[in-house]
Amino acid sequence: MTRAWVKTLELSLPSLKDNTADADRMIQALKSRLGADDIAVDLDLLKKLPDVLRNADYHIRCVLYKDRGRWGISGVLSAEDPAPVLGMAVDLGTTRVVIRLVDLAGGRALAETSFDNPQLAVGPDILTRIHHADSEEGRIRLQRLIVDSLNREMAALCASCGFAATDVFLMAIAGNTAMTHLFMGLNPRWIIREPYIPVVNRPGTHRALQLGLCANPGARVFVFPNIGSYFGGDLIAGILYSGLNQREETAILVDVGTNAEVVLGNKNWMIACAGAAGPALEGGAARMGMMAGPGVIDRVAISPDTLQLDIHTIENLPPVGICGSGMIDLAAQLFLCGMLDIRGKFVASVCGTRLKEMDGLKHLVVVNREDAATGHDLSISQADIDSLIRSKAAMYTILETLTASVGMAPPELTRFYVAGTFGSFINPVSAISIGMIPDLPLNCYQTLGNSSLGGAARILESCDLFEEVDRIQGSITYLELNVNQDFMNRFSAAKFLPHTDPSLFPSVKQRVYTEGYGR
Amino acid sequence: MTRAWVKTLELSLPSLKDNTADADRMIQALKSRLGADDIAVDLDLLKKLPDVLRNADYHIRCVLYKDRGRWGISGVLSAEDPAPVLGMAVDLGTTRVVIRLVDLAGGRALAETSFDNPQLAVGPDILTRIHHADSEEGRIRLQRLIVDSLNREMAALCASCGFAATDVFLMAIAGNTAMTHLFMGLNPRWIIREPYIPVVNRPGTHRALQLGLCANPGARVFVFPNIGSYFGGDLIAGILYSGLNQREETAILVDVGTNAEVVLGNKNWMIACAGAAGPALEGGAARMGMMAGPGVIDRVAISPDTLQLDIHTIENLPPVGICGSGMIDLAAQLFLCGMLDIRGKFVASVCGTRLKEMDGLKHLVVVNREDAATGHDLSISQADIDSLIRSKAAMYTILETLTASVGMAPPELTRFYVAGTFGSFINPVSAISIGMIPDLPLNCYQTLGNSSLGGAARILESCDLFEEVDRIQGSITYLELNVNQDFMNRFSAAKFLPHTDPSLFPSVKQRVYTEGYGR
Repeated sequence: MTRAWVKTLELSLPSLKDNTADADRMIQALKSRLGADDIAVDLDLLKKLPDVLRNADYHIRCVLYKDRGRWGISGVLSAEDPAPVLGMAVDLGTTRVVIRLVDLAGGRALAETSFDNPQLAVGPDILTRIHHADSEEGRIRLQRLIVDSLNREMAALCASCGFAATDVFLMAIAGNTAMTHLFMGLNPRWIIREPYIPVVNRPGTHRALQLGLCANPGARVFVFPNIGSYFGGDLIAGILYSGLNQREETAILVDVGTNAEVVLGNKNWMIACAGAAGPALEGGAARMGMMAGPGVIDRVAISPDTLQLDIHTIENLPPVGICGSGMIDLAAQLFLCGMLDIRGKFVASVCGTRLKEMDGLKHLVVVNREDAATGHDLSISQADIDSLIRSKAAMYTILETLTASVGMAPPELTRFYVAGTFGSFINPVSAISIGMIPDLPLNCYQTLGNSSLGGAARILESCDLFEEVDRIQGSITYLELNVNQDFMNRFSAAKFLPHTDPSLFPSVKQRVYTEGYGR
Repeated sequence: MTRAWVKTLELSLPSLKDNTADADRMIQALKSRLGADDIAVDLDLLKKLPDVLRNADYHIRCVLYKDRGRWGISGVLSAEDPAPVLGMAVDLGTTRVVIRLVDLAGGRALAETSFDNPQLAVGPDILTRIHHADSEEGRIRLQRLIVDSLNREMAALCASCGFAATDVFLMAIAGNTAMTHLFMGLNPRWIIREPYIPVVNRPGTHRALQLGLCANPGARVFVFPNIGSYFGGDLIAGILYSGLNQREETAILVDVGTNAEVVLGNKNWMIACAGAAGPALEGGAARMGMMAGPGVIDRVAISPDTLQLDIHTIENLPPVGICGSGMIDLAAQLFLCGMLDIRGKFVASVCGTRLKEMDGLKHLVVVNREDAATGHDLSISQADIDSLIRSKAAMYTILETLTASVGMAPPELTRFYVAGTFGSFINPVSAISIGMIPDLPLNCYQTLGNSSLGGAARILESCDLFEEVDRIQGSITYLELNVNQDFMNRFSAAKFLPHTDPSLFPSVKQRVYTEGYGR
């Protein structure tokens, strides 16, 4: 891998005719190899360099990093030294943190683990943490929480492969703007106050030591840039991972969660926006809604003939609740079978005995108490459905608004990337059926999984990508979603199943089993 | 001063229309002001930035530095903040250290002090210290010695002006290659072992904190580059200070000490060499020779009629010995009066009773015991004179060899810079009279004083000069003085007073009082 962060060099030996200093000899060789203007070397490395070079007979491996366009050397090893040179990619989620160990010389992924963001102890939501960070003690506490757990987990992950954390020379961190601030010990106070100003958009590269991270003493940490308070480094990493930034044709990338973050563009331009898509999509809002986990309903089918619900739970355990992808499946299936009308209301005549009245609200029993792990009926209420419909309408309206801003309509897209772990589990047919995403051929959809982690890992694989990340950050125009009359009109039209304009969703028409729809 | 390291900026205020982050807002304004590609900001500075900017209403002073061609910000103050922004220039001598406090905003020198290099406690000469530095403990001890005293003296110097060491944001250190290594904690072991390889030629810019220096926490330290083990940063600083690097016409710069370091060149090219000029020039070799100090003979005249010696001592105290400039004066006067012949031998018939035989060697009494502070005769021996003549011959041969290498002869020079404190005290007429330096019109000679300190101070005055220092370092060709037959022939010819070829020294002929010379 020629673009790896590790370069093997056979330096010319010092002589009376060539008495260039050790560091400059190495730098000159690297400069011509990399075509670099200059290369920085740490003081600590200079101290060790004479012995390292002589013990290695000037045949070495240099571990590199980049810092705002300039190369630097984070470590020098003998070419014969069998020690690994590792990188660590980090997806710094508000709830969950995922880290992946990468071989910096070969670019290969070695191991991966995930753990709860320990800042959950301070507050499950970003806002609580931002308020907690208002005092310096709070900031220090929040930073320590995440840094300590990163150190612990990194050491364990390295050990699981027979390596040490000191073998890690380069880390890449992708998180949303607030998480990035908390990780760096920066005050996120102004992120949530008009006019919503982060401390920094392009944090750049820092010494691991300065951030409190226990990796190699020379290790560097690249922190993904953001383009504002509501469009973070996790999304920039996601764009990099998707390859949207390299495409000729315009594509869209959607990261679905509490917020829907959307990027539209190609290799020449990008336009982005973020909007509240509603908690219904993430689980937690519906009475039986929850995060994905064992026993959680993640897929639902309904037989059009018998109207029997065929549910699938994670690990095939007795059902305990339903997650976002299950909700979307359920709503889609209910609609296609006529149990929901185009306004998203339960159709009593079709639902039959499954429909019950509880606390003055209509509920549809999804799992009878006999079959549920909880010992009581698992049901969704009309309010749950209404909430889901608002969320899906918000999502579609955001897509429509963004495409309209460049004179396109959603159906004109040829590539639709779905990012985020949650996005991986959505059944696109269901999402189309409820009108959450446009009615594109299924092969236009591409799920990316954890694109934030993927993007972070990618820049550990190739030393060309720091500049590409900066280019992505610089080429995005952020569209402030103005909730004006135009937006509200679009939103109202999208609050139907799948939409007030059925011609936007021709495939749904074919899937509908009832005669009521679209005629 | 537009090229000062401090820039005052009135940033645009954040708004919903322009929600660029604090750091990026500042960096963008600086980038357009400086025409810079990118500008680095420390993590510590990022932590303070939101408060600093808001308290200053975004009207700020940025303190800058450069690190291998890239700009960085070492501090941000409110434009209204009356705190000074200081720089510290350091001449890191083997024996003596001189520091100068500079106003970074205005470039003005504020105060200066000097102190003995505390590493003298380990060894007066470089070699002892280099051996001491072979162990890590030794290196740490030597670095601590110099860093601690720099911290102490810097704090005292700042206090003497009513400032604090934390007001110092930028330091520039010029020293020879070994002193630079010891200051940075680098192992100088290979400097003195064939093929004489320093750890680093261009140390670049480092954090003061990392070097153990107690300045502003964001302060940076620029360490002057060297071009080898025997041509150090003090000389590069001297070239910068002299302006030789900017001249159309070829000039020469000579730094006289134990070593004679010589640079010949102009704005397009430079060629340098260093050679042992002999300890006779620095005092210490002659029995009565010593460093300049109270009571030391620094000037000598001899009446051609009475042959009476007219001596001048520092602070007009009773004489205790003689320093290098006094020796050169003495030898010149003895020669011009006929007391030394062209071979440098005492002429008994002219010296008369002043000439005594001691320990089998001829001695010339310079000061009778009655007039000496020491209570015994101050005399110089034939061996002392021989040693001086070898030194001056070595010096002239070096000049001749260097100029010859570019097809010039010493008399063709139009500008002759004499660097070093010692150089400031040499009487050029005397130096010409003994044939130590070429017989140029006296207005060609320009003494620079402490050019190492001067050069270090200059780069604190203008942010353009880091690149110029690199350019100087890169444009010097180092000429290894090959002691071949050619060199030995020149050396033999130069071991006469002033030279075997009197036509090279026409002015000396006119000054000679005896009839024996040049006829």
